[in-house]
Amino acid sequence: MFIGGIEAGGTKMVCAVGDRSGNVQAKQSIPTQDPDETLAKVQTFFSNVELESLGVGSFGPIDLDKNSDTYGMILNTPKTAWKHVDLLGRLQKAFQIPVYVDTDVNAACLAEYHHGAGQDVNSCLYMTIGTGIGAGLVQDGRTFQGQSHPEMGHIITPKHPDDSFAGICPYHGNCLEGMASGPAIEKRYGREGHLLSDEKHVWEIESHYLAHAIAGYTLILSPERIILGGGVMKQDVLFPLVRQKVSELVNGYITLSGMNEFITAPQLDDEQGVKGAIALTAGM
Amino acid sequence: MFIGGIEAGGTKMVCAVGDRSGNVQAKQSIPTQDPDETLAKVQTFFSNVELESLGVGSFGPIDLDKNSDTYGMILNTPKTAWKHVDLLGRLQKAFQIPVYVDTDVNAACLAEYHHGAGQDVNSCLYMTIGTGIGAGLVQDGRTFQGQSHPEMGHIITPKHPDDSFAGICPYHGNCLEGMASGPAIEKRYGREGHLLSDEKHVWEIESHYLAHAIAGYTLILSPERIILGGGVMKQDVLFPLVRQKVSELVNGYITLSGMNEFITAPQLDDEQGVKGAIALTAGM
Ligand SMILES: Nc1ncnc2c1ncn2[C@@H]1O[C@H](COP(=O)(O)OP(=O)(O)O)[C@@H](O)[C@H]1O
Ligand SMILES: Nc1ncnc2c1ncn2[C@@H]1O[C@H](COP(=O)(O)OP(=O)(O)O)[C@@H](O)[C@H]1O
Ligand SMILES: [Zn+2]
Ligand SMILES: [Zn+2]
Repeated sequence: MFIGGIEAGGTKMVCAVGDRSGNVQAKQSIPTQDPDETLAKVQTFFSNVELESLGVGSFGPIDLDKNSDTYGMILNTPKTAWKHVDLLGRLQKAFQIPVYVDTDVNAACLAEYHHGAGQDVNSCLYMTIGTGIGAGLVQDGRTFQGQSHPEMGHIITPKHPDDSFAGICPYHGNCLEGMASGPAIEKRYGREGHLLSDEKHVWEIESHYLAHAIAGYTLILSPERIILGGGVMKQDVLFPLVRQKVSELVNGYITLSGMNEFITAPQLDDEQGVKGAIALTAGM
Repeated sequence: MFIGGIEAGGTKMVCAVGDRSGNVQAKQSIPTQDPDETLAKVQTFFSNVELESLGVGSFGPIDLDKNSDTYGMILNTPKTAWKHVDLLGRLQKAFQIPVYVDTDVNAACLAEYHHGAGQDVNSCLYMTIGTGIGAGLVQDGRTFQGQSHPEMGHIITPKHPDDSFAGICPYHGNCLEGMASGPAIEKRYGREGHLLSDEKHVWEIESHYLAHAIAGYTLILSPERIILGGGVMKQDVLFPLVRQKVSELVNGYITLSGMNEFITAPQLDDEQGVKGAIALTAGM
C-alpha cells in the first residue's frame, strides 16, 4: 500500500504517490483553478493506486484548530474561489481514507526533518523567504501547531538604520514579510532580487531583517537547527551574513554550537512539498 | 499518597505537599543558600510524608534537554555555589521517586492552565514582568520545551521613538528584559515603578515593548490566552494599554477573539509556583 501526498499551493497542486521511507513513485502537477475541477483532477491522479492514507501541506490561511467547526477549511483568502472550501472534508469524502492536513511550511519542515537537512537533529525550524515569508517547526517528529496556525513571517523586527522603506504587507506594512520578502526587495529597489547580487547594501539590509527574525525564533522556540529556503535564499551571500548577525544578536546568551550547522540550506528541492505531505500521515 | 512540589528560586525554595486536584496541604519556604544545606532542609520538610512523585519549577539556566548528559543540571549562573549542581540527580537520589523538572515560568504557566486563568482554554502563555522577563507556554497540558529552554524575555523589539534608554541586559543591552523589566524602569527614570504610577509616558513606553513582544509570541506560538504576571503588571494601567497596542500590531491578520479575554491577569498568587511544580508530575 502506498501513501498519497499533496502539496496544495496557490498556483499548483503537486500530487505524489510514495511510501514511508520518503520514496516518490509517481508525481503530477495540477494547476490550481476552480476547486471542483482541480479536486476532480487530483482524484483522477490517485485513482489507479491503493492508498492507505493521504497527507496535505496546504496554502493558507487554513483552519488547523482541531477543536474548531471549520477544521481543515480554507479561510479568508485572496483566491476567492477557494474561500471557505472544506479541503479536508472534500478529500476525506473523495478518498475514504485518513487524511492529514497541515501548513505548507510545516510539511516542508517535516520533509527536511525526516529526509533532508534536519535528519540528524531532534527539532528544526524551516523558514521560506520567497514571495512570502513563513516558517514551520518540527519537534521530535511532530509539527508545532498553535490555536490558529502561526504566522511567523509577520513579526515586526527593528528597522535597519539605513532603511527608509515603508514595507508592503497589506496588514502590517513593515513586518518581516513586508520588509524582506522577494516582492519587498523588488519594490524597494525597483529590480528583482536576482539582479541585485552585486549590491552589497541590499544584502546587508536583507540579512538584518532575517537575522532579527531568526534570533527571535531561536529565543522563543529554541530549535536545534534552522533551515532557510525559498527564492531569496538563492542569493548565496545571505547565509554568512545571516549567521554572523544572529551570532551577534544572541551574543552568547544561548550556545549555538556551530553557526554553520545551526543555520543551513534545505537539502530537498523539488520534492520537499510532497515528501512533507506524505510524512504528515505518519506522525499524527 | 501525595505529590511534592518545589518552586526553586534564586532567593528561596518553596516546598509544598499537595495532590492532583491542586490542593496544597502543607508548605514551607526555605532560603536558597549553600546547595548541600538547602537540599538537606528540603529533604527534611518532605520526610514525614509519603510522596509518589516530585515536581520542580526551577530558576535557570538549567539544562532541560533530555538527550543531554547534563539534563537537570544548573548551568552557568551568577549564583556560583549552584553552578553545575545536578538538581534533578540529587533530588532523585534523595527521594527515590520520579522527579520532574521544568523552568519556573513553565511551571507557573501550567498552574494557571490547570487551576487559574487558563482553565478554560487548550493553550496559554504565561509571561512574568518583574526583576526579569520570562515566559512559558502550555499546550494541551504539556509545557513547551525546545532544545535549550527558551529565553523569550531576551528578544529584541523595535525601540519606542521617544525612548533613548540603552537598556540594561548584560548580554544584549536593549532586549525586552533590558528595556522593560522592573530594574530597567528603575534605571531609566531613577525611581522604582510603583512610584511612577502617574507618569503617563512611562507606561506608554513600557506597553510599547510589552505589546511588541506579545504580538511576536502570538504570531509565532499562537496561544489561546496570554497571562501577564510579575511585579510590573501590578501597574493596572498597563493591561488596557497593552491590549490596545497588541490589537494594532496584529491588525486583524489573526483573529483575537476578545482582547480582554485574550490578555489577562493571573488568578493564582502565592501558590502558583508550587501548584505548577506539583502539576509537572502529572503530564510528563
Ligand atoms: N537569486 C535570487 N536572489 C534574490 N531573490 C530571488 C532570487 N531568485 C528568486 N528570488 C525571489 O524569490 C521570490 C520567489 O520565491 P520562491 O520561493 O521561488 O517562490 P514562492 O515563494 O512563490 O514559492 C521572488 O520574489 C524572486 O524575486
Ligand atoms: N506597582 C508596581 N508598578 C511597577 N513596578 C512594580 C510594582 N510593584 C513591583 N514592581 C517592580 O517589579 C519588580 C519585582 O517583580 P516581582 O515579580 O515582584 O519579583 P521577581 O521577578 O523577582 O520574582 C521590581 O523591579 C519592582 O520595582
Ligand atoms: Zn505582515
Ligand atoms: Zn537580554
